[in-house]
Parts: sequence; C-alpha cells; structure tokens
Amino acid sequence: MTAPHFTVQTDMLVVTWTDGTITHFPTIWLRDNCPSGLHPETHERLLDLLAIDETPVLISAALDGDFAVLEYEDAHVSHMPIALMSAHRPGRRTDDAGDVSAQLWRADLGILGIPRHISATIMTDDQALNTWMRDTATFGLTIVEHLQDRIDAGIDVAERIGFLRTTNFGTTFEVINKPDPNNLAYTSVALPLHTDLPNQEVPPGYQFLHCLANEAKGGGSLFADGFAMAEDLRAEDPEAFRLLCETPIPFRFSDHDADIKVHRPVITLGAFGHVIEIRYNAHLAGIFDMSAKIMPAYYRAYRAYMAKTRDPKYRINFRLKAGEMVVFDNRRVLHGRDSFDPSTGFRHLHGCYVDRGEFFSRLRLLEKEISIAKTS
Amino acid sequence: MTAPHFTVQTDMLVVTWTDGTITHFPTIWLRDNCPSGLHPETHERLLDLLAIDETPVLISAALDGDFAVLEYEDAHVSHMPIALMSAHRPGRRTDDAGDVSAQLWRADLGILGIPRHISATIMTDDQALNTWMRDTATFGLTIVEHLQDRIDAGIDVAERIGFLRTTNFGTTFEVINKPDPNNLAYTSVALPLHTDLPNQEVPPGYQFLHCLANEAKGGGSLFADGFAMAEDLRAEDPEAFRLLCETPIPFRFSDHDADIKVHRPVITLGAFGHVIEIRYNAHLAGIFDMSAKIMPAYYRAYRAYMAKTRDPKYRINFRLKAGEMVVFDNRRVLHGRDSFDPSTGFRHLHGCYVDRGEFFSRLRLLEKEISIAKTS
Repeated sequence: MTAPHFTVQTDMLVVTWTDGTITHFPTIWLRDNCPSGLHPETHERLLDLLAIDETPVLISAALDGDFAVLEYEDAHVSHMPIALMSAHRPGRRTDDAGDVSAQLWRADLGILGIPRHISATIMTDDQALNTWMRDTATFGLTIVEHLQDRIDAGIDVAERIGFLRTTNFGTTFEVINKPDPNNLAYTSVALPLHTDLPNQEVPPGYQFLHCLANEAKGGGSLFADGFAMAEDLRAEDPEAFRLLCETPIPFRFSDHDADIKVHRPVITLGAFGHVIEIRYNAHLAGIFDMSAKIMPAYYRAYRAYMAKTRDPKYRINFRLKAGEMVVFDNRRVLHGRDSFDPSTGFRHLHGCYVDRGEFFSRLRLLEKEISIAKTS
Repeated sequence: MTAPHFTVQTDMLVVTWTDGTITHFPTIWLRDNCPSGLHPETHERLLDLLAIDETPVLISAALDGDFAVLEYEDAHVSHMPIALMSAHRPGRRTDDAGDVSAQLWRADLGILGIPRHISATIMTDDQALNTWMRDTATFGLTIVEHLQDRIDAGIDVAERIGFLRTTNFGTTFEVINKPDPNNLAYTSVALPLHTDLPNQEVPPGYQFLHCLANEAKGGGSLFADGFAMAEDLRAEDPEAFRLLCETPIPFRFSDHDADIKVHRPVITLGAFGHVIEIRYNAHLAGIFDMSAKIMPAYYRAYRAYMAKTRDPKYRINFRLKAGEMVVFDNRRVLHGRDSFDPSTGFRHLHGCYVDRGEFFSRLRLLEKEISIAKTS
C-alpha cells in the first residue's frame, strides 16, 4: 500500500488516495478543522473562524506518519490526521453507526417475518439490545416477547434505549376504552391505519405498545410500511408522489387541554431523496387549504396513498397476546386495529414513545461500546 | 349587507362574498368537509374519503340562514356552515391565535425595550400570562422580574405554559461552573452568541434562565435577534442567505451518555418564505461536508452570518440580577455571556425549556378562554 499523494494549490489541497480516488480540500476547511482548535475537556470547537483568512494560502504539504503536515503563508502549521481527512472527504457522507438502511416490506413479509426478541435478554445484554434496536430501525417493526405481567414492564424495555417522549397525552398512556374519550384510540371503534400525532412539529419516533390483556372479541392489530407504500407510489405515479412531498397540509388535535397544529407534507424526503417520514392520519388531518388550482390534483394524490393503506398487499394483521409488545417507528410504520366488543372481555395496551434522537444516540453509543469490547 | 352569491359548476362551487371577493370550492373539498363526518365525542373525522367520488357532481346550492344547502347527483345533501366556508377559503391562511408576527429588533431596542413582566402576576392571572407570552413570541425575548428566591421559582413560571422539554441534559439544568464539564456552558469561559442544541431534530423552543446569583466579576449576558440578522443578510447578500437556507450542515453533541447529530441548514424558512428557525452554534457545528465545489462560497456565507453575531449593531448586553429570569425563543434569539471569574463570587442560573408546540397550544387555549370570558 502506497501513501496518499498531495498536490498543493494555493486555495486547495488535492489528495490522491491509495485507491486512486481524488479529493479536493479547500484550505478554509483545512484550517477550520485543524486539531489545535478543540476545547481539551468538552471537545467543542474553540477556533474563531473569523480570525483566519477567507482563503488561507497553503505553501506545502508533506506526509509525516499518520499526519499531513500543512504549512501556510501566515506561518501556521497544522498536523492533520490522515484518518480524519479520509473520513471527512467533502461531498461524501461520513460513516455513522446511526445510519441504518430501511428494509421495505409488504404483506408478504408475513407475521413470521417480523423480528421477535426476548424481553429479559434485551434488559440484561447490551449486544441483544443492539441487535433488537437494529432490527427495529431496519424493519420499522419488531415484537418483544415474554414481558412480565406488570404495567411498567414495557416502559422498562423502552427506557433501556433512552428517556420517554412526553406529549399532551402524557409520558405513558393506556389504550383502553374510556368514558368521555378525547381520542378515538380510547374508544372501541376500529382505527384505520395511521401514524400518531402528525400534528406535532416532530411526531413521536418509536412507539411501544405493551399488551397486558386482549380478551375482547375483535381488537386485532394492523401494520403497514408507510415507506414501502410511498416508494411504490413514487414508481407508479410520480406526480402524486411529488404533490404529497411538496404540499403541506394542516394537522390538528384539540381538546380541553391542548390545541396543537402544524402544516406538513404527508411524505418528507431526506437530503438524499429517500423517504424519511410519513404523516398520515385521516382523523387529525385538518381542513385542506392549498389553492383551489392544485386541490383536485392533491386530493387525487392523497386518495392514491389512502387506497394503498387499504390494499391487502401492504397490510399485516395479527392479534397481540398478553405479554407481547409491538415496537415500531411511528414516523414510518402505520398502525391500526379492528373494532372490539368491550362487553366480551378486557383489552388493555400500555404505551409510550422514545424519539429518534435518543434512539440513534443510544445506537451510536452501543456500537462504540461493543467495538471497544471486541478489541479489548 | 347582502348574502354571498353561489354559482354552481359540476365540480366546483364559486362563491362571491359580500365584499366582492370570489372563492372557488372544489366539490371534493366540500364533500370532504361536510359536517356529517365528525365523531360526536372526539370531533375527529370519521368520513371515509375513499367512499366518495373523485369529483362529486354538484347539482344545486342555496342559502338557508347561516348554511349553504348543497345537493349532489348521488342524492347527498350537505348543510355547510357559511362561517366554516368563509374561514377556510382554499389558498388562504386561516386565522390562528397561535400566529404571532415576529417584531425584529437590533441593539437600538436597548435593554429598556425588552418587555418586563412580574412573576407573581403571571402566576395568578391568565390575562397577564397571555400578554407576557405574546410579548415573548413577538420579540423572542422578555424578562420576568421579582421571582422568589428558590430553585424552582422559574420552573413554576415555565410550567404555567406547559410541560418541560427533556433533553440529554435533563429536564432542568444548572448553569454553574462544574468540574469535568460536558458542555462549555458549565465552565466559566465566555460563550459567544449561539442557539442551544442545534444537533437535535427540533432544538428546544423557549428557554427559561432564572438567575439565582450573579456575584462573580464578569458573567454579563448577551442577546441578539437571529431573525433580524438573517433578514439583513438576505437584503445585503441574497446569495449568502440562499446558501445558509439550502445547505444542511452537521451539528453534533457527544459525551459519555449521548451522541446526537443531525444535518440541518443554519436558516430555515417557513411556508411563506419568512425565517422560522436559526441554528447557530460554532461549538456544536460538526465538520462541514458539503461538496468542495460550493464549500468556499458556503464558508463565505457562514462567516457573513457569523460576523453579524459579532456586530454591536445587533447585540444587547446586560447583567442579570438575582430574581430575574430571561425567557427567549431559542430557535430565534441567540444568547451568550461574558467570561466570569469564579473566585470573585457565585454565579448560578437555573434553566429549562418549553417547546413551541406547547407554547402555542397554550396561547390558543388562553385566547379562547379570554374571548369566552369577554362575551359572557
């Protein structure tokens, strides 16, 4: 293996890597990221970016072991780790243990295709926690089994990941039929596929629904991968897909204690054009307010997505048993349930949320911990 | 005042309002919003949008008191409240008590221009709470005075609005110099103007910093209106403004317990083109990773915004006194502090956050309550 090769331009260092690829590093970037600019304790940046020139003039670059020694016209000398430069090539995404590729699924995944993990193992073994979390991020849906028969057993599993997301419904919630319900979830009627709380700036990330009892007739659960439905729509009807990405619609929830609303599109794309969020909830969608010019086309697009949520091609139905918990990405996987007859038995789910920020933070820390354990 | 006038088209109702303005209502919208489709208890939508035609055919429209009576070819008859139709004209923003226009400010606002409110009044009087909250939303910065000398006095004021936002730093936090700090805020060094936690998907909304003691030499507070700096940049250098709006940059915070990162632009625009969020934190900005092609231009844009944060034209400096609390929109107003000498006395701020969702929910409920009180 030969060493990387440096070509000095006054405003740019051109690096030819050993595999022949070439990267351009503007000198302002090299100076901005000079290792001399970090706080020794907090590792936050201390460099005053305004104290350096807009275009620092590079004079020479030489390899010294694992470092590039860079000399500038203003007499500054940087010792840049080659590893840092290689990991942070401009224009390229850096490796991130929190980047988990979604594996899209449809009905043919089947209930047997939903990854299952054992509660007790997740609670005690970090490697098992990591594997379960990666499955949950990959499929957007897993089942945790053999939970203890106590109200907080599911919460304990969720808190292995991080702190819970509080919403206007509290930090935890009971899905049972209640008198004077402020939400259809708290009745016994069927709930068509939906995502929770699309009326929030950031809807809750991962949802945990621990089944404590499911003895009533009916009450089966439904799930569908909202990303798969969106990608199929993109392939079949790009114009409908575009309208769902570009047109914000109002979402609103209002009761005695809260009145929370936002305008957001049904489909949100990430920086690389892939779907990163679905907001779909027929009950919480407000009165559409786009201009009358695009409204009929928008309704067509919206109904096309809606039709997919009814299509058996995408739906997995199963009946949760006491002691099981479904865990799903509420910003990806739609959930729903059949109606049930409360006179025939008790149905009780205990739920909570952990946001994506905490989830992926934990995944990064676990990955670090596990890779340290492996090498030591 | 004459009545609105209806013109029936098969796929559209054209309404000429009494002031002469004209609104087009596509029939699919009229059917989607027919009042017959709401759950009697939860007021969520029950209508199955797929059960109606893509383009319902309207046959007749007639005014009946406060209602439009609309007859369709499929025999459906709607009684649409005129008030609902008027409030929700397609293409027009609906009135929202949570829409508060930002009043931009610069140094010439002066410390005397920052609205001041009395803690005890906010705690007991909903009208005073409403007025204070509207000032806070308008200016992005207010001062609450005469807080009791106890650690939770500021938290109590914040909780008059809603529940607190939990972050990896906890639900409340102490700004004092600590051993083994994980954040520069917990040292005694100067903090240049910044917004908190731009590494979160949604950075905390409103921040509350209750001053319990400020006896050390130094430790003055700085504030600047990030929206004003952004709007001035838009006027002076539209290309720099555009780059700051369109280029996501990495923000990251990492310590033993958390590793949280996102890519987001420094300036975020709302649906109507106005600035709705600033993320600016030199310490938490990660290593820039846009392509080398735009990188030098991006650095120029970023430094142009940075230069504004140093410009006295935008900064208000003052010294918080024990018993005072600053409250500011952390996604708009940048805050900072001078370094202080911990050997000369104690400096202690107690802080928490309430997110925008809870803030504007409370504002909508207060407005409703106050308007009911007025009319009864």
